[in-house]
Amino acid sequence: MIDRLGVIGVGLMGGSVASAARKYDLCSEIVGFDPDHDNLRNAKRLGVIDDYTSDPEGAVEGADFVVIAVPVGATEQVFSALYKSWSRTAVYTDVGSTKVNVVEAAKAAFGEVPENFVPGHPIAGGEESGVQASTPDLYTGKRVILTPLPDTSPDAMECVTGLWSGVGATVSTMEVTRHDSVLAATSHLPHVIAFALVDMLGRKDEKDEIFRFAAGGFRDFTRLASSDPRMWLDICRANRNEIQHLIEEFKDELTAISEMLEQDSADKLFQLFECSRNARQRFLDQFSD
Amino acid sequence: MIDRLGVIGVGLMGGSVASAARKYDLCSEIVGFDPDHDNLRNAKRLGVIDDYTSDPEGAVEGADFVVIAVPVGATEQVFSALYKSWSRTAVYTDVGSTKVNVVEAAKAAFGEVPENFVPGHPIAGGEESGVQASTPDLYTGKRVILTPLPDTSPDAMECVTGLWSGVGATVSTMEVTRHDSVLAATSHLPHVIAFALVDMLGRKDEKDEIFRFAAGGFRDFTRLASSDPRMWLDICRANRNEIQHLIEEFKDELTAISEMLEQDSADKLFQLFECSRNARQRFLDQFSD
Repeated sequence: MIDRLGVIGVGLMGGSVASAARKYDLCSEIVGFDPDHDNLRNAKRLGVIDDYTSDPEGAVEGADFVVIAVPVGATEQVFSALYKSWSRTAVYTDVGSTKVNVVEAAKAAFGEVPENFVPGHPIAGGEESGVQASTPDLYTGKRVILTPLPDTSPDAMECVTGLWSGVGATVSTMEVTRHDSVLAATSHLPHVIAFALVDMLGRKDEKDEIFRFAAGGFRDFTRLASSDPRMWLDICRANRNEIQHLIEEFKDELTAISEMLEQDSADKLFQLFECSRNARQRFLDQFSD
Repeated sequence: MIDRLGVIGVGLMGGSVASAARKYDLCSEIVGFDPDHDNLRNAKRLGVIDDYTSDPEGAVEGADFVVIAVPVGATEQVFSALYKSWSRTAVYTDVGSTKVNVVEAAKAAFGEVPENFVPGHPIAGGEESGVQASTPDLYTGKRVILTPLPDTSPDAMECVTGLWSGVGATVSTMEVTRHDSVLAATSHLPHVIAFALVDMLGRKDEKDEIFRFAAGGFRDFTRLASSDPRMWLDICRANRNEIQHLIEEFKDELTAISEMLEQDSADKLFQLFECSRNARQRFLDQFSD
């Protein structure tokens, strides 16, 4: 049981942690901080937090559990703000979509990653942002990846695992670099592709009204392009190398398809489409286990 | 009112035309042909068609309206099979996702495109195939593009427009080549990208189990990769030039993003993501009109 939960960044992710901790009766009191004061007032009005403070230090003062839920590019700034008041007895975690840069940010602020900070990433979210989009069920049935370092305290790991299990998520652990490599493939590259495609077609649409003739499949395919541009800018900058590497690999895959079309290699193209369909089925099947 | 509707290819698309024509009381009798005899028997058992024949000619004999609903690569073969029995008084249309090659197929079989054939493309479908996936509501609220030629009979146009309006679809007309160019952008390229991405990631998943960490966004993004490989092979071959051209354009877009990452051009990248999100919103807004 958490006595006092401090939440830095009370948006979709942080607000949902708070609401879930409340719903599942995992904490007594929740104090939040957010640079957006309207959002912060909203969070209190909605009952997502009990109270708020005008600076990050205030929100973590006396807290025994702290969740940092800010865009990954702002993590170092948050660590610096918390430096002086960092508690040795509290447990800290974050929810950032990239982990290498969060670990780097901790090193930059503290010299080394504090033992009581557990880098984490719940694989959940949505196109909406802000506390009004938060929900106690955002993490139910979802996966959370924790990327502890050799020095990470086992007690801190247990507390963070307990929180996520308590709100219905499944916790996996992974090495920091592997996290960024896997997520680059399953999340960051798909987002980049969706943004790229809709940007390109959007320009065609402006002069040629092509979107009128796009249908339901296009709507699903492009949903990722409705994600928050600021958040995705941060993620892309933070995981730039992995993403660039995958962009090149993907361009090679497209080139291969274009060559199959050029040479009318029907068998090869059919095989590629079929492998793809089978792979997606494998992906879907894991949800029905 | 259609007296006798002949349906060549009683799968998802053809079966849904038949079911819809029945539901909206647009025809008296429906006769079908399909090379898959199990599918054909199923179609009769399900009441989608009243009767079936063992060859395409039989299904159109005495029909006053004929719908050709076969994979686009099989269109020429169907035209050739219907050549001898082609009626001058009946109205013919098709539902193929590409139109240039359908028009070429008609020219190859008949010397010129018959005046009573109206090339058409209902923008509707799904990952499931076969008559068991067909539904009378597949086309309700959807768009149908007709691509008449200068010699296409106005009476035939009126009949075909009447059928689609009668089942709740909105009919647009477009030049044949423009159809293939627009659909390459809004449908064919997205399918190729989805197949390409899932194929590439599927190979990573085989050795690294990355799909475990993919979430709902990935599921939507990759839905197109569950489409029928045979159908999409046909479409890609039929509209090869347009698709190849767009693949190159898309690779250039990805290269531009990779360069923005390389140079850490945060403003440019943010702007691109924002343009993309705004373009998708414009696409979504048309559904709420």
